[in-house]
Amino acid sequence: MQRVVIAGVGLIGGSFALALRKAGFRGRIVGVSSERTLQEALRLGVIDEGASLQDACADADLVYLAGPIHTILDTLPRLDALVKPGALVTDAGSTKARICKAGCSLRRAQFLGGHPMAGKEARGVGSAEAGLFRGRPYLLTPLDASQMETAAAREFVEWIGRIGAEARVMAPETHDRVVALSSHLPQLLSTTLASTLGGHENRDEIAGAAGPGLVDSTRLAMSAWEIWRDILETNEEAIIEALDLFAAQWAGLRKDLKNGQMEEKFRAGAEFAESLRKRS
Amino acid sequence: MQRVVIAGVGLIGGSFALALRKAGFRGRIVGVSSERTLQEALRLGVIDEGASLQDACADADLVYLAGPIHTILDTLPRLDALVKPGALVTDAGSTKARICKAGCSLRRAQFLGGHPMAGKEARGVGSAEAGLFRGRPYLLTPLDASQMETAAAREFVEWIGRIGAEARVMAPETHDRVVALSSHLPQLLSTTLASTLGGHENRDEIAGAAGPGLVDSTRLAMSAWEIWRDILETNEEAIIEALDLFAAQWAGLRKDLKNGQMEEKFRAGAEFAESLRKRS
Repeated sequence: MQRVVIAGVGLIGGSFALALRKAGFRGRIVGVSSERTLQEALRLGVIDEGASLQDACADADLVYLAGPIHTILDTLPRLDALVKPGALVTDAGSTKARICKAGCSLRRAQFLGGHPMAGKEARGVGSAEAGLFRGRPYLLTPLDASQMETAAAREFVEWIGRIGAEARVMAPETHDRVVALSSHLPQLLSTTLASTLGGHENRDEIAGAAGPGLVDSTRLAMSAWEIWRDILETNEEAIIEALDLFAAQWAGLRKDLKNGQMEEKFRAGAEFAESLRKRS
Repeated sequence: MQRVVIAGVGLIGGSFALALRKAGFRGRIVGVSSERTLQEALRLGVIDEGASLQDACADADLVYLAGPIHTILDTLPRLDALVKPGALVTDAGSTKARICKAGCSLRRAQFLGGHPMAGKEARGVGSAEAGLFRGRPYLLTPLDASQMETAAAREFVEWIGRIGAEARVMAPETHDRVVALSSHLPQLLSTTLASTLGGHENRDEIAGAAGPGLVDSTRLAMSAWEIWRDILETNEEAIIEALDLFAAQWAGLRKDLKNGQMEEKFRAGAEFAESLRKRS
């Protein structure tokens, strides 16, 4: 691939551009974003040039949609008229079923949904870094297995490996159920914990007694609402399932506490937590 | 104060000894622990000598009980016969009502419950560090305000300030309700999240998709069961209250999600999470 378009040059889009370059990509990287973001991305050397979506896509081999989910959903139906045959369009949105459905509108180019499991608290292109994806899973969500076998898809998967990420293939609906548990559930637990304590009559005493555990447990609660609004809207069913599963487990824990039988929960929790750390 | 006894030379007891020394304490620090721990503590320069509880306490000005809660509860009734009049006995146990009640058995010496809000993943005297309490709250739980006014209590509070911690006074029952929310609730959320995902049929996919948020959210789930067994046993009522409060808030969040009204929860959660960071 020779020409890559990053639509939405924020933390993820900017990091992908930097990662590509660091991994040896010698083609042109074109950014599509607000004028202000493009100026910053140019100044930081993240992109080679800025352009409108139409101008950027005309000759692109890869179009990487890294904006908010609703922007991706708005952009996809417009792309087929803009891209060249054989190009690959992919995205980095946090939910996949709705996006992959919208991606079906592409006929001339191929759409392949993606979701890099990377991020950090700071946002924007100023926080982008070439190593953001290193050692992190990069989920790909084809509608059927044959979509992984095109030349464009194979080349994209190769670049994912070169930037240090681990490509994993998953159906879009499976992806959405899995991230409802692995990502959306932890987010909502942190938000509920922080909003519960913040609204408690003993709020000041609670904050005064905060140890490192509470500080860590409320980190996700500082996540940006604008991002989560889109995630919640596009994955409601799987999230409701995850909420109900947690509620049932929470009721079970209450019973175990009353019966003095909590040890097994601690053992199972520690085992899973440790297994996560062995992987990464 | 000239002679300090640390009963239970682990992470907290060892760190308190190192912190005292670094803050300019020139008296003698005597450790009471297993033979193996005493040898390590001596080798690391954490204590000046090891002794039996009886020998150590005879001439002590401060007895600092830093073992597990059940050890503190077992030790307190034996102390009155061992300490000299005017000595201060304190502890670092994570729950306070039961311990402070047991402390009432002291007649010759004064008991003042305490709880430093400090810690880290690693345990044992080998992990002790002089800076562990720096910038952290140090809760003190007198049964009535006059207990803060004795000469021994005033001197102890001065040392808490010198080691960089912030002394805060709270009734034992208030303490237990507050930490049920600030510490025990986050612990049980992390344990339940990790045990739920660990037992899920999609466990492998969930672990494969784990981002930094899930890793952070399951850190507390690796806490030692032996410590939590004692905490859960000695603070059951307040913990059950905290569990029920969270369950009600969780049900409210589900309703808000269905009604597309989640923004306020995110706003309130972010506000509290940020307020915690401004304090520390």
